[in-house]
Amino acid sequence: MSFNTFGQMFRVTTWGESHGPALGATVDGCPPGVPLSEADIQPWMERRRPGQSRYTTQRQEADAVEILSGVYEGQTTGTPIQLLIRNTDQRSKDYSDIAASFRPGHADITYFQKYGLRDPRGGGRSSARETAARVAAGAVARAALAALVPGLRVRGYLVQVGPHGIDRAAFDDAQIDANPFFCPDAAAAAAWAAYLDGLRKSGDSVGAVIEVVATGVPTGLGAPIYGKLDGDLAAAMMSINAVKGVEIGAGMAAAALTGTENADEITMGAEGPEYASNHAGGVLGGISTGQPVVVRFAVKPTSSILRPRRTVTLAGTDAEIITKGRHDPCVGIRAVPVGEAMMACVLLDAALRHRGQVGDGPRGHIPVSTPGPAPTQE
Amino acid sequence: MSFNTFGQMFRVTTWGESHGPALGATVDGCPPGVPLSEADIQPWMERRRPGQSRYTTQRQEADAVEILSGVYEGQTTGTPIQLLIRNTDQRSKDYSDIAASFRPGHADITYFQKYGLRDPRGGGRSSARETAARVAAGAVARAALAALVPGLRVRGYLVQVGPHGIDRAAFDDAQIDANPFFCPDAAAAAAWAAYLDGLRKSGDSVGAVIEVVATGVPTGLGAPIYGKLDGDLAAAMMSINAVKGVEIGAGMAAAALTGTENADEITMGAEGPEYASNHAGGVLGGISTGQPVVVRFAVKPTSSILRPRRTVTLAGTDAEIITKGRHDPCVGIRAVPVGEAMMACVLLDAALRHRGQVGDGPRGHIPVSTPGPAPTQE
Amino acid sequence: MSFNTFGQMFRVTTWGESHGPALGATVDGCPPGVPLSEADIQPWMERRRPGQSRYTTQRQEADAVEILSGVYEGQTTGTPIQLLIRNTDQRSKDYSDIAASFRPGHADITYFQKYGLRDPRGGGRSSARETAARVAAGAVARAALAALVPGLRVRGYLVQVGPHGIDRAAFDDAQIDANPFFCPDAAAAAAWAAYLDGLRKSGDSVGAVIEVVATGVPTGLGAPIYGKLDGDLAAAMMSINAVKGVEIGAGMAAAALTGTENADEITMGAEGPEYASNHAGGVLGGISTGQPVVVRFAVKPTSSILRPRRTVTLAGTDAEIITKGRHDPCVGIRAVPVGEAMMACVLLDAALRHRGQVGDGPRGHIPVSTPGPAPTQE
Amino acid sequence: MSFNTFGQMFRVTTWGESHGPALGATVDGCPPGVPLSEADIQPWMERRRPGQSRYTTQRQEADAVEILSGVYEGQTTGTPIQLLIRNTDQRSKDYSDIAASFRPGHADITYFQKYGLRDPRGGGRSSARETAARVAAGAVARAALAALVPGLRVRGYLVQVGPHGIDRAAFDDAQIDANPFFCPDAAAAAAWAAYLDGLRKSGDSVGAVIEVVATGVPTGLGAPIYGKLDGDLAAAMMSINAVKGVEIGAGMAAAALTGTENADEITMGAEGPEYASNHAGGVLGGISTGQPVVVRFAVKPTSSILRPRRTVTLAGTDAEIITKGRHDPCVGIRAVPVGEAMMACVLLDAALRHRGQVGDGPRGHIPVSTPGPAPTQE
Repeated sequence: MSFNTFGQMFRVTTWGESHGPALGATVDGCPPGVPLSEADIQPWMERRRPGQSRYTTQRQEADAVEILSGVYEGQTTGTPIQLLIRNTDQRSKDYSDIAASFRPGHADITYFQKYGLRDPRGGGRSSARETAARVAAGAVARAALAALVPGLRVRGYLVQVGPHGIDRAAFDDAQIDANPFFCPDAAAAAAWAAYLDGLRKSGDSVGAVIEVVATGVPTGLGAPIYGKLDGDLAAAMMSINAVKGVEIGAGMAAAALTGTENADEITMGAEGPEYASNHAGGVLGGISTGQPVVVRFAVKPTSSILRPRRTVTLAGTDAEIITKGRHDPCVGIRAVPVGEAMMACVLLDAALRHRGQVGDGPRGHIPVSTPGPAPTQE
Repeated sequence: MSFNTFGQMFRVTTWGESHGPALGATVDGCPPGVPLSEADIQPWMERRRPGQSRYTTQRQEADAVEILSGVYEGQTTGTPIQLLIRNTDQRSKDYSDIAASFRPGHADITYFQKYGLRDPRGGGRSSARETAARVAAGAVARAALAALVPGLRVRGYLVQVGPHGIDRAAFDDAQIDANPFFCPDAAAAAAWAAYLDGLRKSGDSVGAVIEVVATGVPTGLGAPIYGKLDGDLAAAMMSINAVKGVEIGAGMAAAALTGTENADEITMGAEGPEYASNHAGGVLGGISTGQPVVVRFAVKPTSSILRPRRTVTLAGTDAEIITKGRHDPCVGIRAVPVGEAMMACVLLDAALRHRGQVGDGPRGHIPVSTPGPAPTQE
Repeated sequence: MSFNTFGQMFRVTTWGESHGPALGATVDGCPPGVPLSEADIQPWMERRRPGQSRYTTQRQEADAVEILSGVYEGQTTGTPIQLLIRNTDQRSKDYSDIAASFRPGHADITYFQKYGLRDPRGGGRSSARETAARVAAGAVARAALAALVPGLRVRGYLVQVGPHGIDRAAFDDAQIDANPFFCPDAAAAAAWAAYLDGLRKSGDSVGAVIEVVATGVPTGLGAPIYGKLDGDLAAAMMSINAVKGVEIGAGMAAAALTGTENADEITMGAEGPEYASNHAGGVLGGISTGQPVVVRFAVKPTSSILRPRRTVTLAGTDAEIITKGRHDPCVGIRAVPVGEAMMACVLLDAALRHRGQVGDGPRGHIPVSTPGPAPTQE
Repeated sequence: MSFNTFGQMFRVTTWGESHGPALGATVDGCPPGVPLSEADIQPWMERRRPGQSRYTTQRQEADAVEILSGVYEGQTTGTPIQLLIRNTDQRSKDYSDIAASFRPGHADITYFQKYGLRDPRGGGRSSARETAARVAAGAVARAALAALVPGLRVRGYLVQVGPHGIDRAAFDDAQIDANPFFCPDAAAAAAWAAYLDGLRKSGDSVGAVIEVVATGVPTGLGAPIYGKLDGDLAAAMMSINAVKGVEIGAGMAAAALTGTENADEITMGAEGPEYASNHAGGVLGGISTGQPVVVRFAVKPTSSILRPRRTVTLAGTDAEIITKGRHDPCVGIRAVPVGEAMMACVLLDAALRHRGQVGDGPRGHIPVSTPGPAPTQE
């Protein structure tokens, strides 16, 4: 990762501002021969698109992706894929009021301090709008993974909104797309709706926790020491706007476990090693175990709120600020497809790097033996 | 980050196995003219060195660092600095018993699955011994930061061992080096000692949470979008052995905050903007605010324990395993200087990159005005 | 350099095919605050634009560059600059005839062998049309250099067409833009016109040698060992279509020199060291000396010619091929602005990297002393 | 390539100075399971080792390589390979005389201007001694290539010393190791011996041209546009000390060819396409054709000579300088194994990158048909 590019072999560079004419992603290193068209990308854009419920910003964007290069006759060519998304509903006037002050908790002050420039139009490059380009790139990664690693599936959902978590016992995969929160627990979704309606009316916002799970991940992806799969995932998720924490498997709670509890015991199954638990989140020593890869990340509340906060102006005076405009009361909701996209990109990149260094598939094979008596080893 | 290298301008490549003849770090991109000798590095090695209390592994290593290149007459030359650390107490026989089985929760199974090779000697490259090289590199980064950013200070400590956290109200900086846990709370340190003695006798291990804080960080470090300071920190910390979660500022708890609560309100102080709180952990939009940069990470318990766990053998049979040898009951303790080293490396790299793109210092200046009446802005 | 990206801090990724809807460059890492608009870019595009004389392809392209991001109110923001160039005169029918055969000397066979795909439309990604994106990026680099290194000037010209070289004694800077060949020698230009007219009528093509010189380059740019200025220049120039050789300073002829002849003797001048000659081409040990940086590269003749050549078909049969269409009889002519653009990009990248590692300006200063008697040193 | 690292997947970082305690190479990304020991490396070191004839420096170095990591039980593990070479015959006193002056044509002035430091001991990092580390890394690359691409062979030789070239008609592969010049033409070798004896006695030095050829290279290596095989080779060869020009295939002479002459005509052979010539040097569009990959590079004469040259001192006064010490009268001779090593590293890196993006082997297959009548295509 550097500047606006992530990935080593599957390299994604995003570009564009919230209120410029367009934004997009330059995707390099994609394998050739992958079937791809705009129709493969658009459904993923739809999941992230704003304005679809009262819980997200009311900005209306078609988020139509144009493929400008790298695809010929419905297949990737192996050369760079340019994905262009036109901005159509940028209302810069919305932001004219706040041009003179910085929003507490917002990046506008640090962009100014770093670059000496002030682009008040919707946060410019720091806007969550940038994540549209990630979703487009993630759709390309999904298409390539479908060809390279059939059976791999990436799935994200919300597990917490504000202080309200889901009930893991009520987890229902079918619920995820049945409510505006990507929530796998129907009761929690109903509670969140009421909670967010209240927040929205009060002009406030709130954070959330997203979980993204990849199943069907082959063993062997990721590489020591600074190419670890979990290191790449941490960087990828932390790079999403407003993310303040990333967890793999047991996450921060691993600190409270004993070695006895944390060890994911292994037994031989019909097709290879099986794990009794997944505290590891599918990654050991930075390399995938074949178990589901489980990542969680926390998104802070939107800093653009209708409640007055103390701040300073460009001129160096104290002020109070209220941010009008069209903002997400819980930007974490739309972070679900973004987290999925980052997972897909990271896994494809790891798969290509593994294939490059080691060749196709994992090299070390543990044979499935006829189970005999279990000797105690010391 | 890629393979065994991290950093873009200040680039650290670590190499070497736990039980090979030596390990080390190749440090490239260091500014020239930085005063540096082995004596600047050794104190930091001492803080991480094993065998200093009964709470860490009893392996005895001098961890003496030899500078083989890149320093001439006491100054860095701007060319690669090779830092060599000889292994002197590797007892490979300790590991001969476990050569045939995989330790649950340990990377030996994934290294085997990825590379097709089995190096049972202390985990080979996946051993926590690799972190000695990071500490050596971190000492170089500290020396360079001392020259470039006077006043910058990096400090780590333990805030949780197993389920037992510190009392923030009892935080005492002077305590950190006064107990074997880098614990800023004297009472917590005493409690941890008793707790870990019990665990050690039972042959078990436990996790921990480390917090690393950098003060005196200038504004403007870090860059959008995939070069964010917090993204780099997340990758850096997650790359440390056994880390399962990384938090910046409020971290995972940010999810439960409202926008009103989370906003770090700003007022003009005598020398520039001042923040009423630091939920952001010193980073907004991936760029440093000038507040303390606050990172926490959770280390899982050591997987090498004396308590029997179910596993499988290389031959594909079920087995039970007990890992004898010299292991850390709480490897999180020695992760404190490692986390500090990673923080120092990441900050130096960000400072050099900022200087490269933007020039010395931040560009955007908020003048210190005479405070007038505070107008409400909308 | 990797895949479709070059540069470390000033990073240019080009994308797009000869006959797709558009092509362009994603430019990352540009310093903020650089004055930039389309009007700063277009003049450089004009110099490379096809169809301006009978010696280049008759394809008509406006080569109008749209800046889609990274510029706000006439200044670069420090975030990615997307430069979009629409293709308007792609006539795919021109190429339908040759879809079944490979052109000898053309990349269509290797792209097919690598990727398994055949995009006969004007060479797809391998077309010289890709160089339009380089020129656009180079214009951005020039704008940044103008701000960072006032007085730096990059100038390219043709020194040889086919077997016909210029007369160095007749070198006239003012001639370069006065003929369709960027030729500094008026007599040579006239001879080339006649020579190329004959070639064009016979349906043949020919190669050329381009020289690019940068003056006003500060000392200290470039870094050991794999970041040498001449190494970066060699890679940059060799990456241009059809280039088969790159020389710095004396170039291949350096092999025939003795050490006595090759040493560029140094004396103290009024403002610092002065060199009696420039066999080094402005680079010693990969680092700029302050003398003019001199690069030459040879472009082979266009492979698309009207004269029959033996080849093979996709089906594996022998064939003869004649390539109709609109081709450059001497593609080397249009390589002049491309070489200039690459020089500008490489120098800016080196300047930013130097500033990152070492800080502004060179560090080692040789004082201008009052010349005394010259002692013989041994 | 950046700073002291080259390669994307097979990454080599060299470190160390001419007169420090040691130098070496950190090799990352090597495939696992490659048989490797010091005995595989040492023969290549011998070819480059100084002091073997009166035509190279008389410095005596064993150049014994120690493998400190990344190899276990005779096989590479896939983790970093540290290659250490001790310096044993560094005589710093040799250089004390020249500490106060800069050698014309030598990098000592630019290192000083860049870094503000003066390491007069044998050129420090800029010494040709650095190339020992390249040869060691190249031996690792050769071992990996032997496993991945059986039949690939890399071979270098001298084709010109000073103004005296070989007679291509007299080319005899068996001669290359039969004389101290790696010269394939016995008569030329004899002439060079006489020529160099004269030069040496006069205290002068001279340049040379080296050619490196790789046969058995599969089709499809290299990638557009800034990952071209010839671009990587140009950077790799230009990074070798004292190299001033790099050519692929026809090289600079391609400028004088017509398209008709330059086209390497293709016919179907028993095993696939066959080329009537190889002006392309085995690379089209940056991708290997399967023909021999042919690179030439020119090495300038050693700048350390016994003949007086005008220069300046650190104090800014004019001076004359004679460089005593042990220098190569024709450093180009020892560049032969260095060029071979760079070729091996670049090809392995390209092979791993190709495998990563595209999978094993080339994708596009041209079937071997029964030759029919050759239709004229237009």
